[in-house]
Amino acid sequence: MKYGLVGASGRMGGEIRRIFSAHELCYTLDITGETGEGVPEVMVDFSQPSALGATLAAVRRFSCSLVIGTTGLSEAQLEEVKDLGRSVPVVQSFNFAAGVTLFKMILREFGPLFADWDVEICETHHNKKKDAPSGTAILLRDALGRDCPAHSLRMGGVPGDHSVIFASEGELFSLTHRAISRSVFAYGALRAAEFAAAAQPGFYSFEEVLTCGRKTS
Amino acid sequence: MKYGLVGASGRMGGEIRRIFSAHELCYTLDITGETGEGVPEVMVDFSQPSALGATLAAVRRFSCSLVIGTTGLSEAQLEEVKDLGRSVPVVQSFNFAAGVTLFKMILREFGPLFADWDVEICETHHNKKKDAPSGTAILLRDALGRDCPAHSLRMGGVPGDHSVIFASEGELFSLTHRAISRSVFAYGALRAAEFAAAAQPGFYSFEEVLTCGRKTS
Amino acid sequence: MKYGLVGASGRMGGEIRRIFSAHELCYTLDITGETGEGVPEVMVDFSQPSALGATLAAVRRFSCSLVIGTTGLSEAQLEEVKDLGRSVPVVQSFNFAAGVTLFKMILREFGPLFADWDVEICETHHNKKKDAPSGTAILLRDALGRDCPAHSLRMGGVPGDHSVIFASEGELFSLTHRAISRSVFAYGALRAAEFAAAAQPGFYSFEEVLTCGRKTS
Amino acid sequence: MKYGLVGASGRMGGEIRRIFSAHELCYTLDITGETGEGVPEVMVDFSQPSALGATLAAVRRFSCSLVIGTTGLSEAQLEEVKDLGRSVPVVQSFNFAAGVTLFKMILREFGPLFADWDVEICETHHNKKKDAPSGTAILLRDALGRDCPAHSLRMGGVPGDHSVIFASEGELFSLTHRAISRSVFAYGALRAAEFAAAAQPGFYSFEEVLTCGRKTS
Repeated sequence: MKYGLVGASGRMGGEIRRIFSAHELCYTLDITGETGEGVPEVMVDFSQPSALGATLAAVRRFSCSLVIGTTGLSEAQLEEVKDLGRSVPVVQSFNFAAGVTLFKMILREFGPLFADWDVEICETHHNKKKDAPSGTAILLRDALGRDCPAHSLRMGGVPGDHSVIFASEGELFSLTHRAISRSVFAYGALRAAEFAAAAQPGFYSFEEVLTCGRKTS
Repeated sequence: MKYGLVGASGRMGGEIRRIFSAHELCYTLDITGETGEGVPEVMVDFSQPSALGATLAAVRRFSCSLVIGTTGLSEAQLEEVKDLGRSVPVVQSFNFAAGVTLFKMILREFGPLFADWDVEICETHHNKKKDAPSGTAILLRDALGRDCPAHSLRMGGVPGDHSVIFASEGELFSLTHRAISRSVFAYGALRAAEFAAAAQPGFYSFEEVLTCGRKTS
Repeated sequence: MKYGLVGASGRMGGEIRRIFSAHELCYTLDITGETGEGVPEVMVDFSQPSALGATLAAVRRFSCSLVIGTTGLSEAQLEEVKDLGRSVPVVQSFNFAAGVTLFKMILREFGPLFADWDVEICETHHNKKKDAPSGTAILLRDALGRDCPAHSLRMGGVPGDHSVIFASEGELFSLTHRAISRSVFAYGALRAAEFAAAAQPGFYSFEEVLTCGRKTS
Repeated sequence: MKYGLVGASGRMGGEIRRIFSAHELCYTLDITGETGEGVPEVMVDFSQPSALGATLAAVRRFSCSLVIGTTGLSEAQLEEVKDLGRSVPVVQSFNFAAGVTLFKMILREFGPLFADWDVEICETHHNKKKDAPSGTAILLRDALGRDCPAHSLRMGGVPGDHSVIFASEGELFSLTHRAISRSVFAYGALRAAEFAAAAQPGFYSFEEVLTCGRKTS
């Protein structure tokens, strides 16, 4: 697969190049300009909202697919990205960790069946993290569909653990996700890129990538 | 709720009486005969296959619901139980732990989305347990739909822990069930009895009790 | 071993009789009076402070050993118990769970070697428990010798889990205790009784029972 | 602190430079020769047994401390390293993970107090790892001082988890170590280097570094 990369010189850009090493990087777009030869099948952008205009222009020029994980996009920018999905395959998400996405889907679907169980959330992150509970903990609680206590541990260099724990009088059932490394998003981006390179035009969530293009409710 | 109990003098019978203490036990059927006054709304049987004939006769006589968790029923006996579902509500399962049932349902539905993750099972039981892997571990592996290593720890007085662990290059996701006490089946029986007392005639699985009568595939 | 039991008719008394079933109960002392024939080698008291006088009188009469786990003893009462240790073997503790005691000993000895690690405590108990953090969590934090966050989950029927978690930039190390059943104290009492029946006169902690009579600092 | 580094261009050399970034690298020794200006206070060697001669010569020339984590040293080589401890501070270990070392120390000291508990070991590593059980699992079992089952899970990209689990009839107690990243050894090397730079001449284990130079049995 030939791919293009926006923000190739940043930290996330470096991770993507490393995880995409079996594929050919044939185009880069950076604050310093464009480089490249050949036409990418898919463009990957995990950079800044300010880069969006140049990214969209390049995608249109190449008529290639787009995988975009940039956070902080405005409503108007998100609309532009959705519009692009009318002509090419676009995968957009604010979280490209497959495990977190599946965790969320399980909670959304099975949470109601645990309605009469107690539930609490426990999450652990490195001691530099300022916010508590984590964005992922909030996302999981939203998927669960009911409020519950969330405990935040801030310790050492832990990349990120999240547990949702259910308990009844006689049983305990817990679901736990652990990010092994910060490369996790790059693996998700790779999966999305392989999906997007072969998909029909459309605007896809990362859930749809994981469920093979089947639209989820 | 008025209930009848088959095998009231056995260990499981004692557990059921304890967990059903908010309800009225108005009929018992045992190897020593019947006792009771009044008509039960639901009959509960977690005894022996040999008791089935007497149980079915009593249910027909009272025209009450039936919750049956007896293991070791023959094919022919199971057919008889199903037939009874044409005239009264019947809940039948070989495992009345709600958490195990939900665990199984999650694996059956989401297992395919973890197809490219590694998976292993780990289970811990008390050191008197002879079989390994446990029946529940086998049931979970069947629900998962693919073979995988299963590790069995046999230690102390542990009632029963089961973990299904998925790992990819960058993430780990695990689901863990713990039986807190051996009362867990009695809690499930209570839930099934409350469901059966109010249900339409039919033959229901414990999954359907948990999903409120919605037929599951 | 012949043993006597104070508070034989209470819940804890029942547990002790069950766990001590390999031994001979030859004396009971209760609010309703004494029963028994024969001389116990060891007296076991997990009852109320108000019973202490009668317990001490009986121990002196039989010149037997004493295992006492009664909580809420006054300073003066504790002194009386210690005095008794001059003539017979006495084991006294406010917590007869072997695992909790060993956990405490590990933290007291190794806690200082984790001085440059982050540390937090997480404990889970049934949803009827009012106090948080639990007495055991406080005891573990004291043994650790430094203040740290303690997270309390109150869920279902969990008898009691306690974790002390250390993390550095590159490692995570956790110690976890789980009470499997409420019989755990009766098992500790049995161990203490077997120790006391064979010991020299003296006043012993449960730690000394576990370390075989070696005085701990 | 000024330090020298043997094998600076290797993977482990790169990790050490990254973790030692607050210190000044003033000397390197590699297959391609020496570079550097100034005299290191401590030399760090996590390279190959074949480099030992050059390392020892450089340490003698600078009369500096040595931290050596090279694996595969012969008996004769190890003797040479010990001899060097007569004139300069030398820290030698085959495992510089602080958590693993503390884990081992806890088991060695407290293992005997769990003699009447069941015990099993569970360890998880990435699916590229060939050997099972892991070297660390064997080291922990040796520290425990009794044989026990060891379960090895080989999954995804897990850097390395190790659990030693004890269970009695009424309690479960587990100790778990998780390597967060492969940098863990470099952190231990840093700690050893800071210790060695300030120590008296002698031959020290990593345990002694963690216990501040106090000789351990």
